[in-house]
Amino acid sequence: MDVMSAIMGRRSVRRFKPLPVEPEKIETLKDALIWAPSAGNLQSRFFYFVYNDEVKKKLAASALGQKSIVEAPVVIVGCADLTVGDYYRERGIDLYCIQDLSCSIENMMLAAHALGLGSVWVGAFDEVAVAEILNLPRHLRPLAMVPAGYPAETPRPPRRMAPEEAIIEIR
Amino acid sequence: MDVMSAIMGRRSVRRFKPLPVEPEKIETLKDALIWAPSAGNLQSRFFYFVYNDEVKKKLAASALGQKSIVEAPVVIVGCADLTVGDYYRERGIDLYCIQDLSCSIENMMLAAHALGLGSVWVGAFDEVAVAEILNLPRHLRPLAMVPAGYPAETPRPPRRMAPEEAIIEIR
Repeated sequence: MDVMSAIMGRRSVRRFKPLPVEPEKIETLKDALIWAPSAGNLQSRFFYFVYNDEVKKKLAASALGQKSIVEAPVVIVGCADLTVGDYYRERGIDLYCIQDLSCSIENMMLAAHALGLGSVWVGAFDEVAVAEILNLPRHLRPLAMVPAGYPAETPRPPRRMAPEEAIIEIR
Repeated sequence: MDVMSAIMGRRSVRRFKPLPVEPEKIETLKDALIWAPSAGNLQSRFFYFVYNDEVKKKLAASALGQKSIVEAPVVIVGCADLTVGDYYRERGIDLYCIQDLSCSIENMMLAAHALGLGSVWVGAFDEVAVAEILNLPRHLRPLAMVPAGYPAETPRPPRRMAPEEAIIEIR
């Protein structure tokens, strides 16, 4: 699938078929995560691929009970790596590692769509609870939870701003 | 260009040919920005496309004198829209709007690569200076500066972590 078709055709998918994701597709999702840009190429991010039902239930409970997290065959938890602060100080911790992680997640969601998979970015969760569930080391901050799998729904495109609402040109 | 080729083939390009970017390609870049996901579909972001040489010089001065900003035919400045805080409070201001903006910028960099354009994410700049240069309203925080144009260099791929360095699977 070409880049712009993926960018414009990707939707947030919250219902999934009870089918596993093939290992080769999982490997492609990993490549998409890893090949995102990052500040100073420090790659200040780390990921957990969760397939275990008990762990998914706990993650869902930490995220206002979102059912998509339990229903999806795999849930990717994206973490910012705060050791970026050793190099970039506060701007690294408060900004760059969030941007690095976000580029990875967006890459992965586009790749998923191109593979016929659906996914959704879940951002509303209790970070402390997730850190406990996954037994995260102290330098990892969980910032995105992405259930992914074969879609069981076809959402319509949400409204987007027109270019003139979101962009100014300076000539 | 297919999605994974764009994800894996995109490089940070800092040297540009003295050629303008065609208007139809600019429109595609805008679509890529606008169609990124966002928390609650609030689209908490705003963009400036800067073509003006005097403004580019000032932006470069605010970013440690990075020459790519002056050399590129267009510089896209991405801002987080802090009014997201009205809805999502601190988590909106400190996290969601940064993620929303980052997804847009990553989309645009992939689209640029697919169009034969190069770009680079500049993150190290004086936000207060940029706000003054662009006369930003108080609710916009500049967080990414992206020079873009036809590449005058072909950078080699930087090292990336192996999947096992960046990912743990929980089964």
